[in-house]
Amino acid sequence: MGKMKPRTLSGFLELLPDRQVQFDKMIDALRASFSLYGFTPLDTPIIEAAEVLLAKGGGETEKQVYQLTKGDTDLALRFDLTVPLAKYVALHYGALTFPFRRFQIGKVYRGERAQRGRFREFYQADIDIIGDGSLAVINEAEIPGVIYHSLTALGLSRFVIRINNRKVLNGLFAALGLTARAGDILRTVDKLEKIGQEHTAALLVRDIGMEQSQANQLLDLLTCTQRGVSPIAALSAYSGKNALLDEGIEELFTVAKHMEDFGVPDTHFAMDLTIARGLDYYTGTVYETIIPDHPEIGSICSGGRYDNLAEYYTDKPLPGVGISIGLTRLFYVLEEQGYLNDDLLTAPADVLILPMTDDLAPAISFATALRGVGVRAQIYGEQKKFKAKMGYADRLNIPYVVFLGEDELAAGKVTVKNMVSGDQEIVSPEVAIKGLTAGVAHQKTLPPVRQ
Amino acid sequence: MGKMKPRTLSGFLELLPDRQVQFDKMIDALRASFSLYGFTPLDTPIIEAAEVLLAKGGGETEKQVYQLTKGDTDLALRFDLTVPLAKYVALHYGALTFPFRRFQIGKVYRGERAQRGRFREFYQADIDIIGDGSLAVINEAEIPGVIYHSLTALGLSRFVIRINNRKVLNGLFAALGLTARAGDILRTVDKLEKIGQEHTAALLVRDIGMEQSQANQLLDLLTCTQRGVSPIAALSAYSGKNALLDEGIEELFTVAKHMEDFGVPDTHFAMDLTIARGLDYYTGTVYETIIPDHPEIGSICSGGRYDNLAEYYTDKPLPGVGISIGLTRLFYVLEEQGYLNDDLLTAPADVLILPMTDDLAPAISFATALRGVGVRAQIYGEQKKFKAKMGYADRLNIPYVVFLGEDELAAGKVTVKNMVSGDQEIVSPEVAIKGLTAGVAHQKTLPPVRQ
Repeated sequence: MGKMKPRTLSGFLELLPDRQVQFDKMIDALRASFSLYGFTPLDTPIIEAAEVLLAKGGGETEKQVYQLTKGDTDLALRFDLTVPLAKYVALHYGALTFPFRRFQIGKVYRGERAQRGRFREFYQADIDIIGDGSLAVINEAEIPGVIYHSLTALGLSRFVIRINNRKVLNGLFAALGLTARAGDILRTVDKLEKIGQEHTAALLVRDIGMEQSQANQLLDLLTCTQRGVSPIAALSAYSGKNALLDEGIEELFTVAKHMEDFGVPDTHFAMDLTIARGLDYYTGTVYETIIPDHPEIGSICSGGRYDNLAEYYTDKPLPGVGISIGLTRLFYVLEEQGYLNDDLLTAPADVLILPMTDDLAPAISFATALRGVGVRAQIYGEQKKFKAKMGYADRLNIPYVVFLGEDELAAGKVTVKNMVSGDQEIVSPEVAIKGLTAGVAHQKTLPPVRQ
Repeated sequence: MGKMKPRTLSGFLELLPDRQVQFDKMIDALRASFSLYGFTPLDTPIIEAAEVLLAKGGGETEKQVYQLTKGDTDLALRFDLTVPLAKYVALHYGALTFPFRRFQIGKVYRGERAQRGRFREFYQADIDIIGDGSLAVINEAEIPGVIYHSLTALGLSRFVIRINNRKVLNGLFAALGLTARAGDILRTVDKLEKIGQEHTAALLVRDIGMEQSQANQLLDLLTCTQRGVSPIAALSAYSGKNALLDEGIEELFTVAKHMEDFGVPDTHFAMDLTIARGLDYYTGTVYETIIPDHPEIGSICSGGRYDNLAEYYTDKPLPGVGISIGLTRLFYVLEEQGYLNDDLLTAPADVLILPMTDDLAPAISFATALRGVGVRAQIYGEQKKFKAKMGYADRLNIPYVVFLGEDELAAGKVTVKNMVSGDQEIVSPEVAIKGLTAGVAHQKTLPPVRQ
């Protein structure tokens, strides 16, 4: 019979077992972190009615959406977790309690052009806090706390959470009489890091029609952090000039002052007035998170405050704040950079039990006892040479092997071999169970990343 | 602006937050159970190339597959976790170590006709053990151990794992000279429970052409368990008549004799010669699991031994044994029957912290301290009346509320209110943290199901 060549589609990540364990540990760490902050887990369908999912319409995203028909129904695969959240909150509004805090970690789909490090199926890990009509700014201040805790739980140590406030930017443009050009200015300012301040100022003069001195003044202000000047201090000169600006400064100050209380160290937090995070969705605090050693990676965790989560589904104003981690891409770059923690135990079992007698009952009973106290035990029951059995434990990095031979059974003992040190000892089953439990405990507490 | 009416497609389960917590606890319990037996987690793409996914071709399933095109690629959504496993093992054969034990818990898609309790998107939880060329029968004996441990971990207590061996059935038909009619006989025997032995025998005579005495004899044998006769004893009369039958009897005996060693009580295990589980895939031990109180639910966990996992992708013989739990359907029926454990803590937080002063710093610091020791804490920072704040904790079933007012702050204390008992006490933050940790510990150990 002709065989079909097995393959996995490009842009779809399929991990080998040890990598999968590391990936799953990342998900576990994020779940645990998000839960500590009162976020409840959600799981929405991957398939939605196309007209519901694409209610907003337009944009680059829609071209990338996977669409299909089944019978006479137009269906589409979700391309992010925000639109399904908006649908969920609008649909189940009456059954939810606000502020509604949820996290969702799930796969999303985008038919992007295939290239290295780009995925068509990828995990996003999102948290959002949705208010009913209003939402206090303290929620915006809490988000960097969640980011710091979550990334630290993954094992990352060198990262900086950068924040800004869209009211500051928009208020500033209003104070300068440039509200109508806000989008163009932001797009130009976005080039700062690439082309430098002088060229950016020249573009602001040429394309926006700003005075040279005005352009310099604006860029001096926006880049104050790079010159060691606090944005709060730099912005004080603009206090009282515009109500929105004042509000933005106040919020930025409120968020910043609570960082220590939320457990975010100075080293991992910075205000940066150049951050905008898109043009029209965010309306308050915005966040991005960079790894200073690897600026080329870009932001690994971004988000912000928005005014209307579900405006395409309901008239109710549902302001919120949220962040998203592109987990598959993060895993990919961490692997590329060699940051995955190879000390983490990725073996499928803690102990491989090798019965050396025809009667398997003692080996099975011993495995059952180990499992009863939470030790992951596998019985190797295949008819193979001793060397092949040991090679099995070796290739899977199983840390302990237990032998049950005639001698051991006669003496009521088991032989435990530590596969790392090579040490081997004959002990009672009770002693073995205690030792094995302790022996693997440390490795289970290790984070999936080491940076 | 006209609003799009939000909706979720029929046949797609979307849970409210408290139910989602219960569902997630079921997944967690299964993951933990499977891991104890040396199964490693896998995650394969939901989308595969259509020609790869449908390599086997034909059958009812193919009609239900969600297919789509993107560019010039024909894509399909997986309809089970077995075909993706076959592809995975064939594709990554060289990188895997055999026997390869994996579990996968993930969503699969079938465009079934919409009806109550039928799902188009549903979770399956699968485990499989794949051998390279051969696989010892001890692996087949271990499966009921995994089933028993897993279902018990979910909180189920009254269920029976029924097993049979296809070699027994096929050997029996061969001994009776009826191999060519095996499929027809099995289909007829399948009606036993519905139409009774007498009518089944009549069908065997009329449709298969068996002698009346032969039909009676066969049905007597197959239904021996119902009459309190052990299949091993009933089969002993057939010993030596057919090599395959002898092998099957031997395997059935081996699996049964190890049940106690694997920790499966007599009450939860039964041999039943009427079980076939499909016509052509399984070749050795087969399993199904029923809830005797609710026979209408059918089997909640089924599977068996097969000879060739990946015959459509590779010439390598890859025998295996596996089981599958239809998790979404199981959750649905358990909810319907009132078996979900409502004592399980489904609140998004263990503690709601109510700051009663303008300065939020003490409340934030207290929340940070609680989170540091693993207590899930939420700060309620909205400007609402006291009653509304308490109503929030109440509606979400958050078990504890902590007040931080002027008096508490002045005295360096916090007020802790137990929302169940109504008790309230003023204590130091350290005492509060200890008390809160202990207070929620019990609820976190409860299983998601109570039967």
